Amino acid sequence: MIPYVEMSREQLLQEKKLLTVRYEQFREQGLNLNMSRGIPCAEQLELSMPMLDIVNSGSDLHTVTGADCRNYGIVDGIPEVKKLFADLFGVTTDEIIVLGNSSLNMMFDTISSAMAHGLLGGEPWANQGRIKFLCPSPGYDRHFGITEYFDIDMIPIEINEDGPDMDTIEKLVESDPMVKGIWCVPKYSNPTGVTYSDETVMRMARLKPAAKDFRIFWDNAYSVHYLFGEDKQIVNILHECKKNGNPNMVYMYFSTSKITFPGAGLAGMATSLENVNAIKARMSVQTIGGDKINQLRHMRFFGNIDGLMTQMEKHAEILRPRFTAVQETLTKEIGDSGAAQWSDPQGGYFVSFDTMDGCARRTVELCAQAGVTLTPAGATYPYHRDPRDRNIRIAPTSPTIENLITAMSILAVCARLSAIEKLLAQ
Amino acid sequence: MIPYVEMSREQLLQEKKLLTVRYEQFREQGLNLNMSRGIPCAEQLELSMPMLDIVNSGSDLHTVTGADCRNYGIVDGIPEVKKLFADLFGVTTDEIIVLGNSSLNMMFDTISSAMAHGLLGGEPWANQGRIKFLCPSPGYDRHFGITEYFDIDMIPIEINEDGPDMDTIEKLVESDPMVKGIWCVPKYSNPTGVTYSDETVMRMARLKPAAKDFRIFWDNAYSVHYLFGEDKQIVNILHECKKNGNPNMVYMYFSTSKITFPGAGLAGMATSLENVNAIKARMSVQTIGGDKINQLRHMRFFGNIDGLMTQMEKHAEILRPRFTAVQETLTKEIGDSGAAQWSDPQGGYFVSFDTMDGCARRTVELCAQAGVTLTPAGATYPYHRDPRDRNIRIAPTSPTIENLITAMSILAVCARLSAIEKLLAQ
Repeated sequence: MIPYVEMSREQLLQEKKLLTVRYEQFREQGLNLNMSRGIPCAEQLELSMPMLDIVNSGSDLHTVTGADCRNYGIVDGIPEVKKLFADLFGVTTDEIIVLGNSSLNMMFDTISSAMAHGLLGGEPWANQGRIKFLCPSPGYDRHFGITEYFDIDMIPIEINEDGPDMDTIEKLVESDPMVKGIWCVPKYSNPTGVTYSDETVMRMARLKPAAKDFRIFWDNAYSVHYLFGEDKQIVNILHECKKNGNPNMVYMYFSTSKITFPGAGLAGMATSLENVNAIKARMSVQTIGGDKINQLRHMRFFGNIDGLMTQMEKHAEILRPRFTAVQETLTKEIGDSGAAQWSDPQGGYFVSFDTMDGCARRTVELCAQAGVTLTPAGATYPYHRDPRDRNIRIAPTSPTIENLITAMSILAVCARLSAIEKLLAQ
Repeated sequence: MIPYVEMSREQLLQEKKLLTVRYEQFREQGLNLNMSRGIPCAEQLELSMPMLDIVNSGSDLHTVTGADCRNYGIVDGIPEVKKLFADLFGVTTDEIIVLGNSSLNMMFDTISSAMAHGLLGGEPWANQGRIKFLCPSPGYDRHFGITEYFDIDMIPIEINEDGPDMDTIEKLVESDPMVKGIWCVPKYSNPTGVTYSDETVMRMARLKPAAKDFRIFWDNAYSVHYLFGEDKQIVNILHECKKNGNPNMVYMYFSTSKITFPGAGLAGMATSLENVNAIKARMSVQTIGGDKINQLRHMRFFGNIDGLMTQMEKHAEILRPRFTAVQETLTKEIGDSGAAQWSDPQGGYFVSFDTMDGCARRTVELCAQAGVTLTPAGATYPYHRDPRDRNIRIAPTSPTIENLITAMSILAVCARLSAIEKLLAQ
């Protein structure tokens, strides 16, 4: 296939004609495929069904330390589940808080609290003028949703193969005291699949922020969501921060939403003891703590971190053919046209798909008209503004492989049509 | 017995001598009794153990509308549990939000959100200067904890047999635009056991607040926690607010913490559709929603509101002898001494115990030295300041009846000793 940018106007018109025939054929099928939802598929959910039998009317519901999980008490997680999270984060149990079912909610609360009450005795963020967050993009729309809700000025940062652009980050964080935070998904990032290199993590930890109350929001949502190749471990940023005199600079988040059941899972965070104590002081006002029975249910289901990793291998077996189908279909259908490029992640939940510049919105629109729902173009950028209008997040986990192949074929046709429209308009 | 205030100095000294002997006898037993915890006892927890079998690996985990409770989706509660809460609150399902396990957390979030973002387009509370809340007292320490955390000026309001002093409330709410809220526990109140009369509820609903963004925080925590006598239903304040042109003035809260399992229960709120929509808009940023599997578990355990009421009758059977033991022991041990008076609640979780003025701290201290832990004196007042230093909250649900009788005997002796010390010092 000749790359589109090298085609003559006649060749483009001919290509458009062929693609339009295929597009109309898809449209006539009256499809209704949803590619926007980064959710586990039914087979994955089945993996955790035995967990629902583990805690029953015959169970002893006491923790290892003898607390009754059926009653009030223990706000920050039962000891055994704190141990599990400590193992996952590579920290000590007193650096762990386990609370509720939503790590997003923990992030929201951290920011809400910093806005209203400040961090470790510092001035409330809300009283310091309009503060700023750095937002490596494309990134997770719900991170950006939180900072937008609190009217925090979001600055997009480019992401490279080894993580976000550290030169820019260092410049901004170290010169501007209004920069209070950065959103990071350090492993199998949403949506790019990028894993931060050791150098990136270490440069993060070595930052000398202009703001004393600058924080790294380290959402390690996909830390165990390995799929292909070698599962590279990232450097432990909390350790590195401590080594570099920044012990309180990072909040790490994690949940079992995509390990057991979204909504019925466990969420947790890891941070310095000083931060933990400040957060627990707030929690003692805010809540009666998490669902300790569900904590026990998870703990007895996993046994320990090895049990959790075995569960992740089962997830990977289910997901691999889906991710492979996406790669194969896109490779076949986009070919050398240059109409798009896309990520080939080693883990996580997404494939990041870049159309030619200025073609993402049109591609999503064409897909919708052919019955394929994609995440709205721009969703992966702060304020939904993709400066190059090219990024589309593909969520391959939930549809069947058959539907995935159909949807990816349609996406490819739509991306190619959009590219041609763009080139013809120039 | 002669009332202490009528005793001569000699009689008081003689009485003190006798009481001191009894007090020392208790002290020598080396007791360790905790009367401070308003928590269900082990027998009560057993009532809900069958719930843990109801959702298992063989269960269909879809809602009545076909949503899979094991996956993402539905932020405000599954339809069947919203129906249950609607029946409990006497409102429609679209006036309900079910989220998480802690109604306290929902109250915290409501206030946090009002502080940072304002209510229904109004100015954020945090930007309006130091706002005020009315705090009927003695009341629930954790309510006061939330308003204290947000540095809201708390104004104590007296509570009478039919609810808080409405004359004062009307005067303050209708004249001062800085008064933004009031904490209410309208039925079997914590700790007084008071249930608001129809007139009180209707006067609340007819308030003409000086502040457009004034709200009633209606924590109906004990609405179904009936124990003795006739279970009087309170007037539905949301209906009354609507009738009186105040449709958005009330937030009602409830949880199953003391129905199934504290921590592993469900929390919910009821308010106008306009308020619900505003809260759901925030929740869409804040969280992935509640634990829908636990919602289903509760729903299938209760079946409907009748099943829930049957469960409450079983709780009442377990609790009645405990509350009776408190009344009998205090009546016997305090007698006509006038050293204390106490509530005889028809429901709820507490007995409110008033020493002679200025004797609560000393009574709690004496009890502690004899091995009986009580809720700290003052805890039931804003800023822990009981203006008359007399109120002590007794939590009879958790100890055994034997321990309750011992602890109440000690409390009585300590209250009498404190009273005599006070009278002798005059």
